[in-house]
Amino acid sequence: MTRSIVAALLLATAASPVLAQAALPPIAVDPKVAALRDAALQDDYAWNITEGLTTEIGARLAGSPEEARARDWALAKLASMGFSNVHVETFRVHTGTRGTESAEILAPFPQKLVVNALGGSGHTGPEGVTGEVVAFDSVDALRLAPDSAVRGKIVFVDHRMPANQDGSGYGQFGAPRRQGPTIASQKGALAIVIRSIGTDHNRTPHTGIMTFADGAKPIPAGALSIPDAEQLNRILKRGKPVTLRLRLEGTYYTGTSGNVIAEVPGRDPSLPPVLVSGHLDSWDLGTGAIDDASGVAIATAAAKRIMDAGRPLRTIRVVWFGSEEPGLLGGEDYKTRHGKEPHYALIESDFGADKIYKVESRLGEARRDEARMIGAALAPLGIVTGDFDKADGSDIDPMLQDGAFGVALKQDGTRYFDLHHTSNDTLDKIDPEQLRQNVAAWTATLAVLSGRIEPEPKRHKRR
Amino acid sequence: MTRSIVAALLLATAASPVLAQAALPPIAVDPKVAALRDAALQDDYAWNITEGLTTEIGARLAGSPEEARARDWALAKLASMGFSNVHVETFRVHTGTRGTESAEILAPFPQKLVVNALGGSGHTGPEGVTGEVVAFDSVDALRLAPDSAVRGKIVFVDHRMPANQDGSGYGQFGAPRRQGPTIASQKGALAIVIRSIGTDHNRTPHTGIMTFADGAKPIPAGALSIPDAEQLNRILKRGKPVTLRLRLEGTYYTGTSGNVIAEVPGRDPSLPPVLVSGHLDSWDLGTGAIDDASGVAIATAAAKRIMDAGRPLRTIRVVWFGSEEPGLLGGEDYKTRHGKEPHYALIESDFGADKIYKVESRLGEARRDEARMIGAALAPLGIVTGDFDKADGSDIDPMLQDGAFGVALKQDGTRYFDLHHTSNDTLDKIDPEQLRQNVAAWTATLAVLSGRIEPEPKRHKRR
Repeated sequence: MTRSIVAALLLATAASPVLAQAALPPIAVDPKVAALRDAALQDDYAWNITEGLTTEIGARLAGSPEEARARDWALAKLASMGFSNVHVETFRVHTGTRGTESAEILAPFPQKLVVNALGGSGHTGPEGVTGEVVAFDSVDALRLAPDSAVRGKIVFVDHRMPANQDGSGYGQFGAPRRQGPTIASQKGALAIVIRSIGTDHNRTPHTGIMTFADGAKPIPAGALSIPDAEQLNRILKRGKPVTLRLRLEGTYYTGTSGNVIAEVPGRDPSLPPVLVSGHLDSWDLGTGAIDDASGVAIATAAAKRIMDAGRPLRTIRVVWFGSEEPGLLGGEDYKTRHGKEPHYALIESDFGADKIYKVESRLGEARRDEARMIGAALAPLGIVTGDFDKADGSDIDPMLQDGAFGVALKQDGTRYFDLHHTSNDTLDKIDPEQLRQNVAAWTATLAVLSGRIEPEPKRHKRR
Repeated sequence: MTRSIVAALLLATAASPVLAQAALPPIAVDPKVAALRDAALQDDYAWNITEGLTTEIGARLAGSPEEARARDWALAKLASMGFSNVHVETFRVHTGTRGTESAEILAPFPQKLVVNALGGSGHTGPEGVTGEVVAFDSVDALRLAPDSAVRGKIVFVDHRMPANQDGSGYGQFGAPRRQGPTIASQKGALAIVIRSIGTDHNRTPHTGIMTFADGAKPIPAGALSIPDAEQLNRILKRGKPVTLRLRLEGTYYTGTSGNVIAEVPGRDPSLPPVLVSGHLDSWDLGTGAIDDASGVAIATAAAKRIMDAGRPLRTIRVVWFGSEEPGLLGGEDYKTRHGKEPHYALIESDFGADKIYKVESRLGEARRDEARMIGAALAPLGIVTGDFDKADGSDIDPMLQDGAFGVALKQDGTRYFDLHHTSNDTLDKIDPEQLRQNVAAWTATLAVLSGRIEPEPKRHKRR
């Protein structure tokens, strides 16, 4: 044990960006950046946006009338806060309405289970589909099963997703949702239910998007809450055939979505803007508090705090993306329209509202000191500096994939997947103090990226 | 501060039964009782009953076909465990079936809220009822309101129920559920919704029984989940009239319920039995794990452990009461049939499966040493000895009210009202280690109460 710790420390000395920095000249944090950061620990802008959007709109499914109302709400809010160039860029999306949803074990132990359809699921009529359950503990186990074991049955895919601070696990353990329905369909299954992709023990299923691969016939695809998936497992373990009736009604239609955009104009409009963002749409089950009212709120509060302090060198562009949940459609639309324009940096908040614990960035070798400055400015908030060659985000991912510069202010995700895509994603899950820590980190980061802030030029009064 | 602590200690010395015991002769715990207690810390009987009942039956509403299946399950289980005189005593009850339930704010901020009907609620048709919401922060505030403020509206009653270890608060803060519907009806309200009587923040409403007073017309009565009640409060605070559409469909009918009874025969059948109990029925939303599969499991496991050790002096009667939830109907039926027969002591487990932290009893002055012996036997499990003139329980309450002897093994209720009467009352909420501590405490208590255990008389083999 001791030997491996020593070995790890030796490795860390060589590889860790933090320890490697010891060899570099020290960084002094600009006192103006520090002052903006510390003042943001009293922020109310982010809470007001989060509370307002979740209370006055509530759920706002991509492409729905509720998302359209949320865009109107956003336009009014951003204009009233004093942002410039407030506007919407619309696009069309495939969306739907949830209908009656139920799952009922008919034999051997009749009882109801709690289920919700996944986004993109096939639908049943009111009569539902009834079949024997065939269970797999992973998508790979389903993939390896002969078609004959699956054909005409209702597939159940289980897994054991762990809760981690960095949210890792969602990638790997999300496979039952993303790939399970297509594989089940290709093998001739009647329908599929998965253990919710989540880490809680509430009777609140986790929905989320899935897409059938080309040629795969859409079949009903639902998520059982985790207690219900465990119950189904216990029943299956009794060794008797289990018959399930699944009813996932609903309808699909084409609707309008859009990105809401606002700016803090920079002193030099010829310079590339800094883009700060979150997404406006949510799933339909909760009110989208952590996913992602708090994200647009954090980004907007930070931009507003810079605006309140004067005029930054570079323009700050605030984007509340639409239709993130069905597959980054707002991000794709933005990239189509603006992907060729240079951006100084892209940042997104889309992982709840718990404290930021790490900052990573990819600003290029030439801007290493700027990246280090951000790390130094955030350290007093308890934020560790991570890699200098990484950036991520959801809606900004299409542009990051193309090599755009970005910063990632990484939030603690330990309890994120307790709530993600469930009816439990509501305002009461937001901790106002941690939300403020987010705003402070974002404000400091934005103060560095947007360049020196100068007082607003005095306006001549009209006579 | 210090002075009041000293004063409290002085008072405690005089008044506390534990400290007062210092003046009484010491109690030596019977080594057989201690051995049975310690062995029970490895118990599996209680888990097996809890897991089996919640898995193979699930929800079992009083008077429903599911409760009938649960009685059959109980008869088979108790017989297979070796209990004697296993039988059911049936009675008729008013019961019902839940239908479509929804609550929707139509104005000023259209959105859905999560609601469930209370037991005994009036029903709406599929069209629901629509009205303006009038809010009160307590039942007393509703009571004081002029009828004109309520007539033709949908009443919303809020409250702030705290989570306490002893579960206090359910009495006081349960008033919106118990009295609210009658008062609202008498004042001419269209319907009533209450903030769920609970202490969690999940989108899982807490149902529970209510009864309209004589002459009060039944009106629809629902419980909003706590996040939804908070959301409605935020919306009301905007100061605009709030219009709600409430749909609580359902049907009532008369069904059969019953108490399941089994015994460990005592060596002297002329002595009054010790009655140990829990209740078999549950609400329909969850699987009734903490309310009250674990209760019947704890009582039964303790009785079984005594049976395994030999024959006690007194008969142990195990009762799995039916129809506790609609108002102690099983307890009333038992009292009608057996209330005149003497019982040595009554005990019930009906407050979840978290650890027992205190024992109280009311066994009469003449049996004070027996009560002290129970306290001494339980102390090593971290259980405090409380009052010697108190006993309580749900189904046994009608007989305790008449002066019957009883013991109360009080469970930690800190998180009980997070789950109580919700869909979240499922097996995963049971902590197997705390469940075992319950069984150990019950086994020790029962070993004292049932009297000296002797080996089973050898049976002559038939030739």
